[in-house]
Amino acid sequence: MKILILRLGHRISRDPRISTHCGLVSRAFGANGIVYSGEKDQKLLESVKKVSKEWGGDFEVKYEKNWKSFIRNWKGKIAHLTMYGLPVQKVIGKVRKEKDLLVIIGGEKVPPGVYDLADWNVSVTSQPHSEIAALAIFLDRIFRGKELERKFSKAKKKIIPQERGKKVVEK
Amino acid sequence: MKILILRLGHRISRDPRISTHCGLVSRAFGANGIVYSGEKDQKLLESVKKVSKEWGGDFEVKYEKNWKSFIRNWKGKIAHLTMYGLPVQKVIGKVRKEKDLLVIIGGEKVPPGVYDLADWNVSVTSQPHSEIAALAIFLDRIFRGKELERKFSKAKKKIIPQERGKKVVEK
Repeated sequence: MKILILRLGHRISRDPRISTHCGLVSRAFGANGIVYSGEKDQKLLESVKKVSKEWGGDFEVKYEKNWKSFIRNWKGKIAHLTMYGLPVQKVIGKVRKEKDLLVIIGGEKVPPGVYDLADWNVSVTSQPHSEIAALAIFLDRIFRGKELERKFSKAKKKIIPQERGKKVVEK
Repeated sequence: MKILILRLGHRISRDPRISTHCGLVSRAFGANGIVYSGEKDQKLLESVKKVSKEWGGDFEVKYEKNWKSFIRNWKGKIAHLTMYGLPVQKVIGKVRKEKDLLVIIGGEKVPPGVYDLADWNVSVTSQPHSEIAALAIFLDRIFRGKELERKFSKAKKKIIPQERGKKVVEK
């Protein structure tokens, strides 16, 4: 299954860390890449790429100004994460069968059209919380928890889990 | 099980949205409250309290200047979420048996002493990503996914999940 994340409406002044976390979670939880839209933020793109280079894997990071045409040109299915959608535990069985999936995560104001362009509007609880948490749980449900054991190829840095303290192996 | 989250090292200039998300995720995923440490940020406290009041439940939001004495006075066990710790899937069985649990989430620089004060240092993947995602997955594993169905008492606002669009019932 190939999964791409589309992060809408990034704002440099307000979202740098939130959008960075979206990228890092996408990578760590097994998505193949993230596409940022909204304001172009070179620093954001570089920082997610840098993590990917150091910690391994083939995670793609891109910027796309025109998210509407990007969505229109997408060949696979689309899941849009929103607190207003259907519960993830109810729809995940269908979503998991797809070959190519675009997962849309919005900022604070998502254009209404996105709800119609999506094949599934999916909620992770119907409570206000965080697109970062919603994305993590959604990917966790897609991969049935196996993403927690994922290995990353060509990693320059790798953590050896410890009861206390930090152990990082560097190549 | 009573679960309190302790967010260390909040910085007003850098973390307002990240710390807000930490609070909202704590609430939405079934923790009983969050204690913020670091710089005192009245706006942060108010915004998490406001969501809690509107969307229901009995979620506590507090500020604590002296996190060290707070930890020392804590009677239950302590789990510290860190990418360097032992995998959540390995330790969660033990953690789940506790009656009172303090879950510590750090910012970028966690004082080394925290690793020693914790009963468990727990990782959600050994990859760099987000304390927000780590917290969501950790609470999800504690509650075995049942937190997604959680009801919140005395809610003034409630979402009715929809295939498309938004439906909010207000009291």
